Amino acid sequence: MLPITSLKNPRVQEAVRLRDRRHREQQGWTLIDGARELRRALAAGVRLHEAFFCPVLCQGEDARYLLAALPECGCPAWEVSTAVFEKLAFGQRTEGVLGVAETPRRRLDELSVPADAMIAVLEGVEKPGNLGAVLRSADATGVAAVVVADGRTDLFNPNAIRASLGTIFSMPVCECTSGEALTWLDTRGFSIFAARVDGAVPYTDVDCRGPTAIVLGNEAQGLSDVWVGPKVQAVRLPMLGVADSLNLSVTAAVLFYEALRQRR
Amino acid sequence: MLPITSLKNPRVQEAVRLRDRRHREQQGWTLIDGARELRRALAAGVRLHEAFFCPVLCQGEDARYLLAALPECGCPAWEVSTAVFEKLAFGQRTEGVLGVAETPRRRLDELSVPADAMIAVLEGVEKPGNLGAVLRSADATGVAAVVVADGRTDLFNPNAIRASLGTIFSMPVCECTSGEALTWLDTRGFSIFAARVDGAVPYTDVDCRGPTAIVLGNEAQGLSDVWVGPKVQAVRLPMLGVADSLNLSVTAAVLFYEALRQRR
Repeated sequence: MLPITSLKNPRVQEAVRLRDRRHREQQGWTLIDGARELRRALAAGVRLHEAFFCPVLCQGEDARYLLAALPECGCPAWEVSTAVFEKLAFGQRTEGVLGVAETPRRRLDELSVPADAMIAVLEGVEKPGNLGAVLRSADATGVAAVVVADGRTDLFNPNAIRASLGTIFSMPVCECTSGEALTWLDTRGFSIFAARVDGAVPYTDVDCRGPTAIVLGNEAQGLSDVWVGPKVQAVRLPMLGVADSLNLSVTAAVLFYEALRQRR
Repeated sequence: MLPITSLKNPRVQEAVRLRDRRHREQQGWTLIDGARELRRALAAGVRLHEAFFCPVLCQGEDARYLLAALPECGCPAWEVSTAVFEKLAFGQRTEGVLGVAETPRRRLDELSVPADAMIAVLEGVEKPGNLGAVLRSADATGVAAVVVADGRTDLFNPNAIRASLGTIFSMPVCECTSGEALTWLDTRGFSIFAARVDGAVPYTDVDCRGPTAIVLGNEAQGLSDVWVGPKVQAVRLPMLGVADSLNLSVTAAVLFYEALRQRR
């Protein structure tokens, strides 16, 4: 079969439309751009609807692996010209492979985690890049699942996929309301630690060895009042300098790694 | 005095030229965009060469503070129209105040830190945003100075200033070679911990209570061989998931906060 060379090819145009959130949500599909991300998605069992590849751009190990693996994926894999690939790919990313995948969806009541798990809850996260960065740290620290509560971005936004380095596919992730998340955690006996700039207790003074939920708020407004009350302990990170806040992904990583230190 | 309304005004054009690194370095000046950043720079004693302000854009507390403080700064402060300010400001940032400042420069041999200080060394950092993010965490954790060794970006790049939230002005920062940094730390009896993906020892197993240097490498290549040998201990962060690396600013924050936990 000849490579697709026309930017007006309907398959290409349909894939490009998936850059639009509304279209992704209508279709239940997302774009997976980047060889490492696509490889991790396949390893995690994500179902591909179709794939595009441009052999001359496939330079890295992951891209070459995918070139060999795509024919076995049971979905159409379209060879495209460099110009078409550059239209499909995001920004500077031209790693030669791009997948259109069914968006994995998991409900809170489908979540299955060990009884003593560490869980992360992100409330009201707005920036896909922050979501992805938190997923990357969660992956590193043995977090069992990430709950996106009252999210303000779509979970499988291509920028979230990219910032997560593809860990968004291997990590159990689900969406719900903050109230649902709190009830779910509370009924399962989780210790719930909410990161707040004015938290009463330093984060190193709480015990994260049992079932532990670490709850992080929106980039600008922090956590809602759902996370105030006797079921939730507000913890703070020391801030010794002139600035009064830390980046969301930095706060998440420090809390996850402290919990891991205690749990090991 | 009437506000500057012409985009061709020589003062405006000269300030816009400072977006170019070469011009910043030739002049020894940088642009400080953002009200919080400019306020922190003034509080840290940075010398302003001149300032631009656009009263209708000065909405936040920091911007209003600066509107009142600028006449006392001993430098020309030019009122400009909204259109001119938008030309001067970076991207979406139109907080109404912008400063042209003398770039603070400090040499390693001018650095004065407590005998038991915690120091951060960043080798070969390429992205100004990463430098700024590390400075923000260093500020929060009581790091006494940040040494940029073999840097590949200019220290006072406007994006570094912005990502640091202005902490780049309050934190003692200096530039040198990696060899100079190693010698300086070694002769002062610092324990030197180098973050490496394949580090021999988990970062939580080393003692950071005395004089401590935390050394972080380039985003892509990691640390050079300068940081190999009997004077340096390679430490690693646990990586329990599918990904094999963490973001530079995340690694830095986790190490700084663990050192702070031990030191308190």
